[in-house]
Amino acid sequence: MTSLRKVVIVGGGFAGLSAARALRSAPVDVTVVDRRNYHLFQPLLYQVATGSLSPGEIAAPLRGVLGRQRNTRVLLGHVVDLDPTRKQVLLADGASLEYEALVIAVGSQTSYFGHDTWKQWAPGLKSVDEAVNVRHRILYAFEVAERIPDPAERKAWLTFVIVGAGPTGVELAGAIGEIARQTLRRDFRAIHPEEARIILLDGLPRVLTSFPESLARKAQRSLERLGVEIQTGTMVKDVDRNGLVVESGGRSDRIEAHTVLWAGGVTMPPVAKTIAARTQAQTDQAGRIKVNRDLTIPGYSNIYVAGDLASLAGADGKLLPGVAQVAMQQGAYAATAIGRRASGDERPLPPFAYFDKGTIAVIGRGSAVADIFGAHVSGLPAWLIWAFIHVLYLVQFESRVIVFIKWAIQALTFNRSARLITGDAATDLDFSKAIHGDPASPEMRPAMDIRR
Amino acid sequence: MTSLRKVVIVGGGFAGLSAARALRSAPVDVTVVDRRNYHLFQPLLYQVATGSLSPGEIAAPLRGVLGRQRNTRVLLGHVVDLDPTRKQVLLADGASLEYEALVIAVGSQTSYFGHDTWKQWAPGLKSVDEAVNVRHRILYAFEVAERIPDPAERKAWLTFVIVGAGPTGVELAGAIGEIARQTLRRDFRAIHPEEARIILLDGLPRVLTSFPESLARKAQRSLERLGVEIQTGTMVKDVDRNGLVVESGGRSDRIEAHTVLWAGGVTMPPVAKTIAARTQAQTDQAGRIKVNRDLTIPGYSNIYVAGDLASLAGADGKLLPGVAQVAMQQGAYAATAIGRRASGDERPLPPFAYFDKGTIAVIGRGSAVADIFGAHVSGLPAWLIWAFIHVLYLVQFESRVIVFIKWAIQALTFNRSARLITGDAATDLDFSKAIHGDPASPEMRPAMDIRR
Repeated sequence: MTSLRKVVIVGGGFAGLSAARALRSAPVDVTVVDRRNYHLFQPLLYQVATGSLSPGEIAAPLRGVLGRQRNTRVLLGHVVDLDPTRKQVLLADGASLEYEALVIAVGSQTSYFGHDTWKQWAPGLKSVDEAVNVRHRILYAFEVAERIPDPAERKAWLTFVIVGAGPTGVELAGAIGEIARQTLRRDFRAIHPEEARIILLDGLPRVLTSFPESLARKAQRSLERLGVEIQTGTMVKDVDRNGLVVESGGRSDRIEAHTVLWAGGVTMPPVAKTIAARTQAQTDQAGRIKVNRDLTIPGYSNIYVAGDLASLAGADGKLLPGVAQVAMQQGAYAATAIGRRASGDERPLPPFAYFDKGTIAVIGRGSAVADIFGAHVSGLPAWLIWAFIHVLYLVQFESRVIVFIKWAIQALTFNRSARLITGDAATDLDFSKAIHGDPASPEMRPAMDIRR
Repeated sequence: MTSLRKVVIVGGGFAGLSAARALRSAPVDVTVVDRRNYHLFQPLLYQVATGSLSPGEIAAPLRGVLGRQRNTRVLLGHVVDLDPTRKQVLLADGASLEYEALVIAVGSQTSYFGHDTWKQWAPGLKSVDEAVNVRHRILYAFEVAERIPDPAERKAWLTFVIVGAGPTGVELAGAIGEIARQTLRRDFRAIHPEEARIILLDGLPRVLTSFPESLARKAQRSLERLGVEIQTGTMVKDVDRNGLVVESGGRSDRIEAHTVLWAGGVTMPPVAKTIAARTQAQTDQAGRIKVNRDLTIPGYSNIYVAGDLASLAGADGKLLPGVAQVAMQQGAYAATAIGRRASGDERPLPPFAYFDKGTIAVIGRGSAVADIFGAHVSGLPAWLIWAFIHVLYLVQFESRVIVFIKWAIQALTFNRSARLITGDAATDLDFSKAIHGDPASPEMRPAMDIRR
């Protein structure tokens, strides 16, 4: 048996970080490589996108999290290739890293189902930058609507379409509903934010298909109470800067909307294809790498795949979903396997088994649906469970406290403090591009907009 | 006397916001125009730049702050011109706003003393975007240094130069000292962050020239204890991507440094020149508009200038400094004058008199210098006063609580949670540009970097 000392973990997400932490007492040297210098708590990204939290509150610097773990170092770098023969991963800048065991946990990215040009009009929600971009778009839309004289254009700026009614889509739609109906209610003079139209689309026949049907129905009713229109069985045919074309029951419709958000599906990052090619691994429809039941790539007992990139069926025969829980358990499993072998224990681990603790989706303030160990919970109890679990998992002590207090304050006040429009969008405000009507608009509106 | 009902306030900074709030019960219609949708608590920007706070925590959405003030509306727009004859301000998108009284409070921006090309190598600290940029640069420098094999290059990445030893420069230098010596102390394997060289430069003979000399000496000693090198009487002659050239006592020196931060001086935004031209107003050396003792522009009794843009001597004959206190008092003064006239009270107000409550600069954790009503305070008491005042002034209730708790936690743990590198810099990490040495660097370093 070869020695096993150098462990490289590619990716500092849920799978990678969980693997690194599980190796903290193993007799190995661990290198975690990530393009970002932080671990991101992705399930709360929609709260950054909707102005409830700041990016710093749902992200923890990887060096901070792993700095005290003496057998581990963190490297900021972009892995672009793998040489399984020489046992090296290659970085974008030409550097290489040798490994004796490798954990690939690069995660997934937003899929536009082959229509990548839609991305510019319909940003996804996978990174901090995307979340900040989405936040700018939502807030900017209300600002433009406030200045626009033409009713049809104003309506298009006040129409928000969310594509994909999985947990992220549901959470986004609910949060935008709250922004329009509560947070911004008294902030504008010319528009009534609560007249915003929020549309949640999905090609499947119902929302939250990963949830039991009774909970999905409850979620749908809660969303509708927040003013969200739900259009299921509806496919997106085209997206452009002024809206989108949808098809439902053979009928094609155009929705004029300047804010389209994409929560529609995932695909694998480009490096996944390269890795599959180098190892002759098979991939599934979504581009995920098919792994053995011990998470290794067939033919490579020292290369583990964990998290969204791993394609593996669960006990029920269905593919395991790309969620944080699966990623963390897989990362820990790979680490345990590596740790055992490094300690000279050559007995194989039992195959990876996913322990599903349940699923939760938040709809709004004090409202959620949860399927915990088969128990169906909804409303405030579900929301409290959600808040508890998420605060608990936020990696750093500090974040936990801050986030908890913010939520408590927000639950009492409906306020959202992180409502900043920054970046280029804010630097040069040329509304004339946005306002197709009379450019001399603001003073042309009647005085009513001042006193309301 | 003409009617006075339509009040336009250009700028939502300390002066503009203070004017708007002081008009809340006046019989006028107020419009606040700003390019940003938020009020920024600028004195804490350096804490965003050094990863202590998130942007959302030192900024409050203008609509949130003024939304409940029924006589006021907020407009997102960029004022580019003024027509004092037709009493209109013009926006970048071609729209115009009529006023009967105008408060110009557009603030200042970073001055490179005629060398605007330096900006790309030495960012300033005036906006959220700049602060986030500075944060990225500081953290990125440590990351590159960790990967670099060449000792000279590594040293250049670990050299941080701050130009300008006023309060912002002092606060930045102190915070970087803490980051290097405490926050990141155990986070790296190849480098010792505490070996970072932090240089604070100023052309004047001492730091904090706006403070009494005894306090400036104390500040200097505290900075030196944090490892900051202070070079006073030193002028910057050139800045490029690899460092800067400085001159001191007739001798020219080059400092190799990849992180140069500019806290060096202020100039006025381009619109200030336009406004001065349109009103035939005189400007001072820094481009500020010389105003009457009631803050109006000579010849225009309905145009007030407040904040950094106003050039006015205080009781001691010296020009009032561009600080938040002056801005807030001037904004409130202009509002009071406008409110009186709107109510039909034509008696003039007594001239504006600045009430100086004192100055504070923070050096590090629990360390500051303060000159409060002539009393000199330093160390922890000064820091406590500083923390109290700043938390008090943070506009929103929520921010106050959050910031206070963050500081408390940080004071106990030295942790800085907002250490994110986001944006383009993080998306495509091509270290080869940064690392001039051997591109295959990481594995060429001895194994010691793993175990330290």
